[in-house]
Amino acid sequence: MSEQIAIDAMGGDYAPREIVLGALDAVRRDGIGVVLVGDEAQVRPLVEAEGMLSHPLVTIHHASQTIDMDEHPAMAFRKKKDASVSVCARLVKDGTCGAMIAPGSTGAAVTVGLFGLGRIPGIHRPAIASALPNEKGGLTLLIDAGASTQPEVKNLLQNALLGHYYAKEVYGIARPRVGLLNVGTEATKGSALITETYAAMQAQSQYHFVGNVEGREVLGGDVDVVVCDGFTGNALLKFGEGLARMFFTLMKDAVMTGGLRAKLGAWLLRPALRAMKRRVDYKEYGGAMLLGVSGGLVICHGASDRRAIANATRLAAKMTASGAHEKVRAALAAEAAS
Amino acid sequence: MSEQIAIDAMGGDYAPREIVLGALDAVRRDGIGVVLVGDEAQVRPLVEAEGMLSHPLVTIHHASQTIDMDEHPAMAFRKKKDASVSVCARLVKDGTCGAMIAPGSTGAAVTVGLFGLGRIPGIHRPAIASALPNEKGGLTLLIDAGASTQPEVKNLLQNALLGHYYAKEVYGIARPRVGLLNVGTEATKGSALITETYAAMQAQSQYHFVGNVEGREVLGGDVDVVVCDGFTGNALLKFGEGLARMFFTLMKDAVMTGGLRAKLGAWLLRPALRAMKRRVDYKEYGGAMLLGVSGGLVICHGASDRRAIANATRLAAKMTASGAHEKVRAALAAEAAS
Repeated sequence: MSEQIAIDAMGGDYAPREIVLGALDAVRRDGIGVVLVGDEAQVRPLVEAEGMLSHPLVTIHHASQTIDMDEHPAMAFRKKKDASVSVCARLVKDGTCGAMIAPGSTGAAVTVGLFGLGRIPGIHRPAIASALPNEKGGLTLLIDAGASTQPEVKNLLQNALLGHYYAKEVYGIARPRVGLLNVGTEATKGSALITETYAAMQAQSQYHFVGNVEGREVLGGDVDVVVCDGFTGNALLKFGEGLARMFFTLMKDAVMTGGLRAKLGAWLLRPALRAMKRRVDYKEYGGAMLLGVSGGLVICHGASDRRAIANATRLAAKMTASGAHEKVRAALAAEAAS
Repeated sequence: MSEQIAIDAMGGDYAPREIVLGALDAVRRDGIGVVLVGDEAQVRPLVEAEGMLSHPLVTIHHASQTIDMDEHPAMAFRKKKDASVSVCARLVKDGTCGAMIAPGSTGAAVTVGLFGLGRIPGIHRPAIASALPNEKGGLTLLIDAGASTQPEVKNLLQNALLGHYYAKEVYGIARPRVGLLNVGTEATKGSALITETYAAMQAQSQYHFVGNVEGREVLGGDVDVVVCDGFTGNALLKFGEGLARMFFTLMKDAVMTGGLRAKLGAWLLRPALRAMKRRVDYKEYGGAMLLGVSGGLVICHGASDRRAIANATRLAAKMTASGAHEKVRAALAAEAAS
């Protein structure tokens, strides 16, 4: 499998500049090969300014169209055959690249994954897996973070399987603890969807199911994979983003109204707080993986900057190298054969 | 309507001591009349030690049973006729008290509200409304925070109406901005449940609907009431609790590993941080309201201490005095008649 990563250079709020610079950082830092897909007239000068036009790991691939944030994803995908994000998918599909990264519209990325890359045989629906820093200093994979807002039991069960393999192969967690998000820890709690899923998870032996997880414990560090529907997952993820912002706003307020003593304290504390902020910064974690499709796809936040893109490129390369994809495929084939 | 508040003195992790002390604080601080319901042999000495046995605003009402956290709520409610939380409901039902507070099991509180107090005529299902401190220094009401995990459109619409009236009458927000939690802000986003609810909210004129709200903006301060299903609401609420804990843990870590400079900074910043912590502490906000039942009911966190109970008692008194209940009843009657 090719280790080159296809980069949608036209996606997200800061395209193409931050996307190109981030991808080139990944080339320099990690030795990853990238194919920059987008309007060559815009992309080429950025690469040239970095003196990397003739770098062996850098390729520019022209694409004449883009999909905007406010377009209907499926319609745009059908109409714009030369959209940069769709071209990325074709490069993965034909083996030129091992994985792709798509900053910007999550809807467009999921559509491109579904129709451009296609599902892994046996997978009913793809799911978004987002790695979040937890209280114990590790990462917890939340799956699904928004691909499918009304899943059935079989979807949640496949999400558990996907989460298990990617937590293990990409994040190096030897025996991932898989939990089910619920309103209580007891087996009888929650909706019919959840109690039925719980029973099926208890009955299987492909992964290590640790039971129901309440919202309070999602990031407690005692669970590695948290399975939930895409509506709740999306709400949680964004709520967490909002809370992080609120926390730092309230802290600033407290310092501003706390007089000289608080201001001096804040100044002294600044380096430590900066280190802490980095620990909870999604830009460090490289975006979310779209799982269940044939090929690696990393979805990046619309506000992704250079650093976020560099980390997303690294995550995409890790997805390619991990072999998780093949393991899922084999597990599903074994399941189908049994 | 009676202004006395029935207190389940046996509910929660720190019962009866913290419950009784908190209720007595509300008597002293706010001049609220309380009826302490529970095992008299345990409750009386606590009141006596505070020198308030003959206080005109304090009544002890014996109840011989309690409902434990791990009991099945509906079954326990049927079997234990003299459970303290059920007795509280009877005191509200017969007009002795204007509202009640129930620390501990949310399931038991919802069951008691539903079967002990009964629904307001026209209400399909009760909902839990939880007031959360927002980024702009106000409060945002999240409804439903866990009463009904699989609502229909009609339930979400009633939650909006309930949220509107209680935000207005209890929290004094002149024209509450009501939003619908969704995975995006566009009208076409989300599940069938949500798009249908959105259309109906757009079409009504009883409250001020401001559209879809993403998780990120729930506590941004630009919306006063956020309507969602009880599964997601419960997950968000508890996730927020977990995140708050994680922040303070990470901060402590940062200080501990940041050397002398960070430690000195933290010491100087301590008073300001304490003030900030109080702003996000649920104990300040008195618990969640169960709405849609005939009578005021405040559900308190299982870990409620004296301060949380005092604030919950005040919230219950406010619910009684606000007249919100009668306004909802009138609005539903008008709706039914039209």
